[in-house]
Amino acid sequence: MITSFHPPQRTLMGPGPSDVNPRILEAMGRPTIGHLDPLFVKMMDEVKSLLQYAFQTKNELTIAVSAPGSAGMETCFVNLVEPGDTVIVCQNGVFGGRMKENVERCGATAVMVMDEWGTACDPKKLEAALQAHPEANTVAFVHAETSTGATTDVKAMCDMAHAYGCLAIVDAVTSVGGIELRVDDWGVDAIYSGTQKCLSCAPGISPVSFSPSAIVRVKNRKTKVQSWFLDLNLVMAYWGDGSTGTKRAYHHTAPVNGLYGLHEALVMLQDEGLEHAWTRHAFHHQALKAGLEALGLKFVVPEADRLPQLNAVSIPEGVDDALVRSILLNDYNLEIGAGLGVMAGKVWRIGLMGYACRKDNVLKCVSALDEVLNRLHAPVTQGKAIAATLAAYGA
Amino acid sequence: MITSFHPPQRTLMGPGPSDVNPRILEAMGRPTIGHLDPLFVKMMDEVKSLLQYAFQTKNELTIAVSAPGSAGMETCFVNLVEPGDTVIVCQNGVFGGRMKENVERCGATAVMVMDEWGTACDPKKLEAALQAHPEANTVAFVHAETSTGATTDVKAMCDMAHAYGCLAIVDAVTSVGGIELRVDDWGVDAIYSGTQKCLSCAPGISPVSFSPSAIVRVKNRKTKVQSWFLDLNLVMAYWGDGSTGTKRAYHHTAPVNGLYGLHEALVMLQDEGLEHAWTRHAFHHQALKAGLEALGLKFVVPEADRLPQLNAVSIPEGVDDALVRSILLNDYNLEIGAGLGVMAGKVWRIGLMGYACRKDNVLKCVSALDEVLNRLHAPVTQGKAIAATLAAYGA
Repeated sequence: MITSFHPPQRTLMGPGPSDVNPRILEAMGRPTIGHLDPLFVKMMDEVKSLLQYAFQTKNELTIAVSAPGSAGMETCFVNLVEPGDTVIVCQNGVFGGRMKENVERCGATAVMVMDEWGTACDPKKLEAALQAHPEANTVAFVHAETSTGATTDVKAMCDMAHAYGCLAIVDAVTSVGGIELRVDDWGVDAIYSGTQKCLSCAPGISPVSFSPSAIVRVKNRKTKVQSWFLDLNLVMAYWGDGSTGTKRAYHHTAPVNGLYGLHEALVMLQDEGLEHAWTRHAFHHQALKAGLEALGLKFVVPEADRLPQLNAVSIPEGVDDALVRSILLNDYNLEIGAGLGVMAGKVWRIGLMGYACRKDNVLKCVSALDEVLNRLHAPVTQGKAIAATLAAYGA
Repeated sequence: MITSFHPPQRTLMGPGPSDVNPRILEAMGRPTIGHLDPLFVKMMDEVKSLLQYAFQTKNELTIAVSAPGSAGMETCFVNLVEPGDTVIVCQNGVFGGRMKENVERCGATAVMVMDEWGTACDPKKLEAALQAHPEANTVAFVHAETSTGATTDVKAMCDMAHAYGCLAIVDAVTSVGGIELRVDDWGVDAIYSGTQKCLSCAPGISPVSFSPSAIVRVKNRKTKVQSWFLDLNLVMAYWGDGSTGTKRAYHHTAPVNGLYGLHEALVMLQDEGLEHAWTRHAFHHQALKAGLEALGLKFVVPEADRLPQLNAVSIPEGVDDALVRSILLNDYNLEIGAGLGVMAGKVWRIGLMGYACRKDNVLKCVSALDEVLNRLHAPVTQGKAIAATLAAYGA
């Protein structure tokens, strides 16, 4: 017989999911009500309005897709891309590659613009591709590459896309709530995110937003959207127009309790203030950086392009990646992330996302890494790492 | 400023979501751990094994899709159907129509076999279609039509499909845990369900299962699956093979807390025993039926094809559908379902699903309907409905 599952209390400092605030866990355990209940519909309107704040947009079509970030990505591609289209995908890590898969499964051609992993996407390279492919109608790239910890200049990329008549699709899974992001000011046409990164909610839902230009394209498609579940024409009718009180058309059953969690996470973000959340991530990143560097760990990404919420550091030669992570998990209940794709076995990815981005976590992570590295590889730091971390906090 | 959302405690007796057991709500609020954490991977193996029990199957590919039932439906179609295929869809309600949408969005042709809403799908009509369309390679139908409350003979339909060399796709969203379902004995090739019906879990996840023949077809596809998120070739690698301890390949981030809930719901089903759950649904349905009939409400579905967990009754002439449901919701915190599609405004759908399928709910529903109908339309039953319900319980 199988019995109830009682998870341990981990400290989640990997690439996501990040630690979920107990307030959000409690919200997810509130009584389920019907997905067409007037009170639930009102809550959906609030989620929409809170997401507009998180994305810094007035886009009417700002909603939560009822599935994880990968489905949010697919929502953007299957609605905006048609068979025969050309899409320029700027890749600087794992998730750009996933965009290529999406484009091709839409029957379109993906023109790849490659940048080195761990660096930002280069708007000049994008321009060259736009000049070489005047048939392209869409540009796609990742704001915050979760596989490497590099950020890309969204405004510069969107400006370039628009200069050549393209719409811009942006992956903001790891950026929302962690670093500056201004959908309207920066001219993003379609954007998707996840709940389990800097919003510190449980995984399973994907916030998305579409500009008026993107909606025009969706409404003027020559072909039906290949996914019924993700067809925005149907999803729009379900999420309705809060401002005019339009009646909701049943499409699918929303993940009621998951949305309770997202609502609570967004209320907390609103109460903290978006700019404050961005500053908090940058602040604790500086302290973590001081500690990691005192441990002799080198950052993968050049300082200017570095994400505060995803710290990729090279694993020193001779250090057993899997063994260190497993000791951290088993002795300290601390999860840090392994490398992904070409970086597997070569880097650790240390997340400082949302609720996980706190002083006690930074200190726990630096101390634990220090102890485990010393345990396995003889004393190397002699307590300097924690001293450096505390110094960065001004202690 | 938007504040935390605190839902009321409703009694959910609509077409789903159904009442969620507090044990499951509590499980969903347990601490989030990483989706690649060894303990989480072990829990996923348990979910797989518990789902095999719920579906009565040994199918290795029995997993939980990380999105609602609509995505489970789409998983079955996009993986098994290729452009140019012919699929016979037997429709006797709303959800057969949704299958047609799915088939067409796969670039295939849907041959529709229509049965009257509120009746079962007829294997003889299916046979005629199979004879007229020897090019068909797939048959699809709904086990328990949520829009009408009618059940269909799955074994007879699958036997017929197989006799003509077709695979059978079955919608079991509302049937799993509520009525007899035996995937292996009945020869189902692909099946999808939902968590928010007779499993009484929160919505957002879709259990699916695929037979070895279905897997052969997926592996021999000429074209790539159009959905990256739902591509079973990738999802299979993520869910891994529990028996051999194969390493999980990262695909997407699983809805960790949603899966805690499903795990708990399935443990409860295992502890109750599947046959016992089926009997419980039939038992309380009899009492509800006695009460509804004493209120003068007529069932839409002939007795032989009637689902115990979804009771569709005609709204008496002159009764205001929306007003009655709104009084039930506001005065009694009781949700019953409206009609869907051609039945909108004509029927109520009263669910008796999973945890909601209890004596106190049956009595609450009959009393409340009795009172509201009397309140709006003068005394018509004078307490006979509750007496009839109690008599059915042997009191």
